[in-house]
Amino acid sequence: MSKIAVLIDDLFEDSEYTKPAQAFKKEGHKLFHVGLKKGKIVRGKKENRPIKIEKSVKEVSVDDFDALLIPGGYSPDRLRADEDTVRFVKEFVESGKPIFAICHAPQLLITAQVLEGRKITGWKSIIQDIKNAGAEFIDKKVVEDGNLISSRHPGDLPAFIGASLKKLK
Amino acid sequence: MSKIAVLIDDLFEDSEYTKPAQAFKKEGHKLFHVGLKKGKIVRGKKENRPIKIEKSVKEVSVDDFDALLIPGGYSPDRLRADEDTVRFVKEFVESGKPIFAICHAPQLLITAQVLEGRKITGWKSIIQDIKNAGAEFIDKKVVEDGNLISSRHPGDLPAFIGASLKKLK
Repeated sequence: MSKIAVLIDDLFEDSEYTKPAQAFKKEGHKLFHVGLKKGKIVRGKKENRPIKIEKSVKEVSVDDFDALLIPGGYSPDRLRADEDTVRFVKEFVESGKPIFAICHAPQLLITAQVLEGRKITGWKSIIQDIKNAGAEFIDKKVVEDGNLISSRHPGDLPAFIGASLKKLK
Repeated sequence: MSKIAVLIDDLFEDSEYTKPAQAFKKEGHKLFHVGLKKGKIVRGKKENRPIKIEKSVKEVSVDDFDALLIPGGYSPDRLRADEDTVRFVKEFVESGKPIFAICHAPQLLITAQVLEGRKITGWKSIIQDIKNAGAEFIDKKVVEDGNLISSRHPGDLPAFIGASLKKLK
């Protein structure tokens, strides 16, 4: 059983949270919603789905978790404006523990300045940002580079979830 | 009187459209809503304000306008996923005509690859993207570099509008 932090804020892409969360729980893993403020209710951009933040990013450390899931949508853009969140992401990547990043999630990795020389994929609107950050953008449904698993959009979820679950075993 | 193209899509930051639009019209300038599809109703992210797209980006050319306004919010992220829009922005910047870019608007300029060596400001979440694009990020309420006028957020609107109007005269 792994403890997985889910880094999330308003306007997340609903299915990029719900589908991995469901699959991870089914395999016995435990999820923790981490965000900007403990107790805050954050909502998805399509279904307006409410999620309660259990821990603020300030009160957690990388040691508390075995892996990190970053759903896309506009949640990563909101989170990357917060210095503590960016620091947490940077430490997570540097720890070598698995990071599952989909859609706009690489935006957080760019601000954390951890993409130099890495292979990654993501949503098409951020391709130039990924390249400018020194990473190699790969247009595939799932890209695995060390501890970094990434996918482009909700259509890639089966491959994303499959690769992520394999990494947790 | 100047003809100003407003490049806009869903989830724009309401005031970053309404306030410049109001000020430009008051001075006798004419605005044209340009977007992904003619006739589409796009909505702001806070007030859900509806705006009708008058021209698709495919049916306009830089020659039709004297200046370009790009409001922020999540509209620029949606627009930069469209190749025709990115090409239009690139040609506009290269034409030397004024560009008024606020908040997330520099995202479009990054994808158009026109920021190398330019001075610009923008919303804090995209600072690293701006730097990685080879631009100099300046943390001021309005930054003017040649034909490029930029501001950070709605709080900067008076300075943004003032500098933009001056450029139109």
